[in-house]
Amino acid sequence: MSLLRFFSFHYICYTMKDPHFINHLKTGILSQNRAILAKAISLVESQKPEHKELALDLLNELLPYTGNSERIGISGTPGAGKSTFIEQLGLALIEKGRNVAVLAVDPSSTKTGGSILGDKTRMEQLSRAENAFIRPSPSRGYYGGIAISTYESALLCEAFGFDTILIETVGVGQSETMVADIVDMFLLIAISGGGDELQGIKRGIMEMADTIFINKVDEKPSTQDHYFYSDLKRALQLFPNPESGWKTPVIMGSALSNKGIDEIIHTIENYFETLKTNNAFQTKRRIQNIKRLERLLQQSVLDQYFGELKTKESYIKIIKQVESGELFALEAVRTLLQK
Amino acid sequence: MSLLRFFSFHYICYTMKDPHFINHLKTGILSQNRAILAKAISLVESQKPEHKELALDLLNELLPYTGNSERIGISGTPGAGKSTFIEQLGLALIEKGRNVAVLAVDPSSTKTGGSILGDKTRMEQLSRAENAFIRPSPSRGYYGGIAISTYESALLCEAFGFDTILIETVGVGQSETMVADIVDMFLLIAISGGGDELQGIKRGIMEMADTIFINKVDEKPSTQDHYFYSDLKRALQLFPNPESGWKTPVIMGSALSNKGIDEIIHTIENYFETLKTNNAFQTKRRIQNIKRLERLLQQSVLDQYFGELKTKESYIKIIKQVESGELFALEAVRTLLQK
Repeated sequence: MSLLRFFSFHYICYTMKDPHFINHLKTGILSQNRAILAKAISLVESQKPEHKELALDLLNELLPYTGNSERIGISGTPGAGKSTFIEQLGLALIEKGRNVAVLAVDPSSTKTGGSILGDKTRMEQLSRAENAFIRPSPSRGYYGGIAISTYESALLCEAFGFDTILIETVGVGQSETMVADIVDMFLLIAISGGGDELQGIKRGIMEMADTIFINKVDEKPSTQDHYFYSDLKRALQLFPNPESGWKTPVIMGSALSNKGIDEIIHTIENYFETLKTNNAFQTKRRIQNIKRLERLLQQSVLDQYFGELKTKESYIKIIKQVESGELFALEAVRTLLQK
Repeated sequence: MSLLRFFSFHYICYTMKDPHFINHLKTGILSQNRAILAKAISLVESQKPEHKELALDLLNELLPYTGNSERIGISGTPGAGKSTFIEQLGLALIEKGRNVAVLAVDPSSTKTGGSILGDKTRMEQLSRAENAFIRPSPSRGYYGGIAISTYESALLCEAFGFDTILIETVGVGQSETMVADIVDMFLLIAISGGGDELQGIKRGIMEMADTIFINKVDEKPSTQDHYFYSDLKRALQLFPNPESGWKTPVIMGSALSNKGIDEIIHTIENYFETLKTNNAFQTKRRIQNIKRLERLLQQSVLDQYFGELKTKESYIKIIKQVESGELFALEAVRTLLQK
């Protein structure tokens, strides 16, 4: 545990006894104090029950101030150049007069020790910018926990007043699906490699993408880039058009040499204009809210049920009987539910 | 409701009052009475609570007689020629001295009125064979319900003494995943078409396949067939090898002209020999049993919880608040779980 982390943790433990703690955080966030925002996010990420309660109270207080950001998810295979892309996009957005928060969802970070955004220097320019806030990926917590707190962290950033929230994810497990469920727009960063181009991109991911950026096309696009572009366009045609009427564009460029970023900015503006004009923006958020409630509720109910069940000897006995085939699953369910 | 269906239903309603009903079905199945097997499957498919209870009692009685069949799942896109393939495979197995049951999982049947195996004449020869039993797809019930009953129907067929149980599925929704979870071997039927060959096959399906049969290669394989074959082989290499050590072969042939069926039979024999030799067969069934228990239990717990919840006015009110963004999901969960 780093000293900074220790003190930040200590700060929470100490101040939570203070009845004005929530109000202190609330006021700090609403007056755009970055240090307090960072602390509030730590609170939201914490897995301790008492912190969770406080986090919910804080979010309740801040809810009236949320809902005004544009949330953009950014995904891509490792090596596609996501960090550079986010840095350039962030700087370009700031130049347009917007302020930008960057969050990360990295379900692998518990194993690797935080592979994305862990090193702030990776986005050196952006992290020094006045109107930017970069939050490294949560370094602990389990899979589901991280996804949950990322959404709540985004709510805090909204209350703070960020115009754009960029949420980075690595292409691991179901992290993209989780991010797609909490953002308004989903951006996929891809690179043309040798061989089975599209094999590298999971079909489900392509279906979620609202814009695809082919990165690392520094000079004139190669034959390979052109093939990749056509393959992507062809694959995208296989999916039904969303009700919003938006058609996923494929853009070639290079984040490193700032090529294509203007086009991305333009596309983002177009996207939100399209969605807000035909009401699809609000509809999308409403559907996400309901989905999120159902998923969290299901998870909580199952956690509670199985948490109690798994310690029981009778359950362990039944599991073994089902495993060996002495008892069939449906009968085991009947037995367990009668108890 | 057809007359036959009506009488079969009536038969169940009448006889369930008979205390010897379960024994009657049990004896009938163990003495290989096909008509009684068909009736027992109807009981297992029924969604009526009283039938479900009886079905469980019957399965309990028959459990000691199960576990000796080889269960093979067969999937493929519509038009790939699954019925013809199953008929030829079934006849070839019978010729080898085995008896064969054919079941179907078709989650779309509630909409289409039963699209697979609905017309028995589609497998004319096989349905006339002495050692075959063909069960048309369940014509009602919901998605999960059908999958559940197919597994229990397979148990009945095992108790009856079928050596091989073929379970057909259409490539709709998650039907393949459900079938893969209840069979020992998963066979994929594919055809080479024009254009985006592999796009038509979902990546997840390929990952489950233990053998792929390229159907409708009647004469010499075309250039297209060869390309398709190489594409499949290449794609298969992307998946990690299973612990059993089995490598998914790709076989070209034509069910209609009985080409390649011998090779399939040989592959099936090899497959089961490999899995039974290194204990992978039992391990696979054990894992399936546990997975099935967990899934059924989760579903039951959620059904029970949400069934009660969804009628409550307070829940409907909360749903609306979450949808509109007045209440955030995590807080709604806290409120609901406290109740």
